[in-house]
Amino acid sequence: MESMSLSEPFWKTAISKVEPNKILIHGYNLMDLIGKYSYADLTYLLWRGELPSEGQSRMMDALLTVCLEHSLNAPSVDATIFVASSGVPLQTAVSAGVAAIGDWHGGAIEQAAKMLQDGVAEMKDGKLSEQEIAEKILMERKERKERIAGYGHPTHTHDPRTRKLLEIATETHIAGAHSKLAEKVEALTEKVFRRHLILNVDGAIAAIISDMGFDWRIGKGFFIVSRTPGLIAHAYEQMYESRPYKAASWKEIVYTGKAERSPPTV
Amino acid sequence: MESMSLSEPFWKTAISKVEPNKILIHGYNLMDLIGKYSYADLTYLLWRGELPSEGQSRMMDALLTVCLEHSLNAPSVDATIFVASSGVPLQTAVSAGVAAIGDWHGGAIEQAAKMLQDGVAEMKDGKLSEQEIAEKILMERKERKERIAGYGHPTHTHDPRTRKLLEIATETHIAGAHSKLAEKVEALTEKVFRRHLILNVDGAIAAIISDMGFDWRIGKGFFIVSRTPGLIAHAYEQMYESRPYKAASWKEIVYTGKAERSPPTV
Amino acid sequence: MESMSLSEPFWKTAISKVEPNKILIHGYNLMDLIGKYSYADLTYLLWRGELPSEGQSRMMDALLTVCLEHSLNAPSVDATIFVASSGVPLQTAVSAGVAAIGDWHGGAIEQAAKMLQDGVAEMKDGKLSEQEIAEKILMERKERKERIAGYGHPTHTHDPRTRKLLEIATETHIAGAHSKLAEKVEALTEKVFRRHLILNVDGAIAAIISDMGFDWRIGKGFFIVSRTPGLIAHAYEQMYESRPYKAASWKEIVYTGKAERSPPTV
Amino acid sequence: MESMSLSEPFWKTAISKVEPNKILIHGYNLMDLIGKYSYADLTYLLWRGELPSEGQSRMMDALLTVCLEHSLNAPSVDATIFVASSGVPLQTAVSAGVAAIGDWHGGAIEQAAKMLQDGVAEMKDGKLSEQEIAEKILMERKERKERIAGYGHPTHTHDPRTRKLLEIATETHIAGAHSKLAEKVEALTEKVFRRHLILNVDGAIAAIISDMGFDWRIGKGFFIVSRTPGLIAHAYEQMYESRPYKAASWKEIVYTGKAERSPPTV
Repeated sequence: MESMSLSEPFWKTAISKVEPNKILIHGYNLMDLIGKYSYADLTYLLWRGELPSEGQSRMMDALLTVCLEHSLNAPSVDATIFVASSGVPLQTAVSAGVAAIGDWHGGAIEQAAKMLQDGVAEMKDGKLSEQEIAEKILMERKERKERIAGYGHPTHTHDPRTRKLLEIATETHIAGAHSKLAEKVEALTEKVFRRHLILNVDGAIAAIISDMGFDWRIGKGFFIVSRTPGLIAHAYEQMYESRPYKAASWKEIVYTGKAERSPPTV
Repeated sequence: MESMSLSEPFWKTAISKVEPNKILIHGYNLMDLIGKYSYADLTYLLWRGELPSEGQSRMMDALLTVCLEHSLNAPSVDATIFVASSGVPLQTAVSAGVAAIGDWHGGAIEQAAKMLQDGVAEMKDGKLSEQEIAEKILMERKERKERIAGYGHPTHTHDPRTRKLLEIATETHIAGAHSKLAEKVEALTEKVFRRHLILNVDGAIAAIISDMGFDWRIGKGFFIVSRTPGLIAHAYEQMYESRPYKAASWKEIVYTGKAERSPPTV
Repeated sequence: MESMSLSEPFWKTAISKVEPNKILIHGYNLMDLIGKYSYADLTYLLWRGELPSEGQSRMMDALLTVCLEHSLNAPSVDATIFVASSGVPLQTAVSAGVAAIGDWHGGAIEQAAKMLQDGVAEMKDGKLSEQEIAEKILMERKERKERIAGYGHPTHTHDPRTRKLLEIATETHIAGAHSKLAEKVEALTEKVFRRHLILNVDGAIAAIISDMGFDWRIGKGFFIVSRTPGLIAHAYEQMYESRPYKAASWKEIVYTGKAERSPPTV
Repeated sequence: MESMSLSEPFWKTAISKVEPNKILIHGYNLMDLIGKYSYADLTYLLWRGELPSEGQSRMMDALLTVCLEHSLNAPSVDATIFVASSGVPLQTAVSAGVAAIGDWHGGAIEQAAKMLQDGVAEMKDGKLSEQEIAEKILMERKERKERIAGYGHPTHTHDPRTRKLLEIATETHIAGAHSKLAEKVEALTEKVFRRHLILNVDGAIAAIISDMGFDWRIGKGFFIVSRTPGLIAHAYEQMYESRPYKAASWKEIVYTGKAERSPPTV
């Protein structure tokens, strides 16, 4: 626990400025942007401080739509519908879904982006080739018995979203060293782990946002924005088109704990 | 508390279908949409079941960008930065901000949309004119001493976002009976309340989504999606560019409770 | 949206006062209380401003333990485990469970307490007897086709928690007009609805906290405090004794939406 | 992302068993416990699987009351009041406060408990003395320029809660190797860091729960349970005794970002 410095103002931000009848985002008047720039463009502006080029704009839209929806086959959506079933406002249910975008669910974007950014930085030092970096990444995780963030998927045997993103990254000339390294790592998984681990959508997003120059620590932001409209759709469906109070039935819950017993007589 | 019907499947949805290597949203393969349709288009698809027309697409983008950011001058952003300061992952802080999109903060969209949809439905019955409906809306709330959802603003004396949205609604031929009624209500506020209450951004969104045929109960969804990139930007700024552990200083907290006293001796 | 009055201090509370090396709660030094008063006692102090009597203390402990745990047969617990499975800190998962303590899950405490407090207030006016108030409560809800908050249960045919709480309320001489009215309403359910609706644990808590003089709007607080240790236990079990990434399997999700189709060719 | 094993049941728990009219917690019927055991006792049961001894019971109550309340001088409470001000149900505001119990706010309990448990384990190996372990702990963190979890406080110059807890731990004969090591570390802070860092309440809780045999990973659970009644009190005060829509005023927000500019003309 550490206190705020007393010399700095309590309320401070570099993102935007509000005064009566005017809202500036990174210096631009929001009114000059609405209707001309897309949601993806303005998300880019918010996170980077500048408006995107045409290619970056197209790439942002793809990055923010690729994880829109994955049915109930996702912890965030399942958390959302249980909360939505309990009699709460829409935003409360969505909030619980956002909270579930954790290290094993969307969070691989950050870990994979860090891994790729570290790898490319090491390549630039010039001592190791792409092949050597990719092998090193895999061997280190094999030794530590860690999973490789951004690779493998429980449902998809190849992740169609990965190919789609990499196609657009190539068309927009955004694909660069990080995307190449990501594909090299995939190619070597079989050699190191004796089974092919696909580059999944988290890994593809990680590679592309790294090629775009994003800090890896904003990685989960892409998943959050992308999944939010889906969480809203599921919350709405649960609240207004389903029965309330959704819970596991006591008949289906397997109890593996202590047998019935009496408390000590005092 | 009421149980689920045993005859219906526990996991059920009409929104999307996932199977290995395929994701369908309302029947469309997500891979056929990415790169062709914008984030705003696909949000429309998720919530309405169909792809938008060109005008609807443009309107959606405006609706989803208009509340992107309002600096620290919003409960959702303030909640986000306190949570972000406590040492949590990005999504946890964003989740708290989403939870704060309550009835007094974005929630007016739903209440205003319901008010306008009820009003227009009553007009269609043909017994009351637009003027009469608008007066009735205002008089009822005056009698009940209720605020009028979607009107008035604590910071802006006219809300620039309102004019921008209504302009685009006119250009795209979306503006209809609900937008007209919303403006009529604004025009009469001075007569009924003796002070002009501006149609604020919540009220403008409410009017336009009503003209687009949205259920009023999805209203908060527009605010949630619009504000999320801003919440992420503020969470990131607090986590990585500010000092941790942000809290009100004990020196500035005014205590208005009971004076110091001793517990009873037992 | 309404702004704070500029004349009142931004940070203000009547609950407690912190200064270096001293924490006062409603005037008492926390250091004088720890070790002498129980958690239930101090919760009473926090919410009421005074320390409880011996009977109130015993009743508080019963009220705060009665909803401790209900296995996975509750939306709050299910929401907790999905969030916990996604790779987040303990408190994030617990937070999602707390968010699910909505109107259909614990929330009946507030609605039932309001119903009983209104009923007893009406009795005190002297125009209607307890029997008449109870009938009126049931008839009004029957006409509006509303459920009766605090009555009926999806799993239990009689709620053992109800009897236990009412026993202790009698022993501690706390049971009064609200508890009596709650039982009268239960006794009449069969006459009005043609089936017996049991007074459930929410209804029993509602009656007793009303007899203790609590505002009905703090009702959910009892459920939140009571359930939190259970949410923590389930979050821990999911995080450290189960497999990560819990989600509904795509094979078990029934899709009821639109058939596969192609987007329009533009 | 990793899927659940298909062979294990989807809904499974060792904590409790619910069937109609019966709730077992770790084998005990909840109805046999209510009224006999305190909230602190049953929290112990939930987390450890057994009922506490008399000393453990007293210690639990102290551990769960010591962090009840810290006025608005805490990120969790501040987050709670902003969310509460936005027009949401009570539990939504409390949920946001729980989410803010992060690594810098209560979270030090877990880190400190791990540090002490590792230290005591190393002492038991017999190679290093308590003094040497304490020095090693401090030197390692000094070299890594890390703070020492559980030491120092932004408001209190000595944390009165620490002494109170250690007193009760001594009286109940719970204080053991972890508490001794915690105090030894405090005693050496001045030597290593040239300023005295007090053992704060997080550190004291960490030491005592370690002496009680708790896994360090349940550490935040103590803070969550302890703070929840306070969060509820603050949410209630904000919702029902304060003005709605609490937000930083635009006049007090210091903007440090880009100067006003125009978007590129296309």
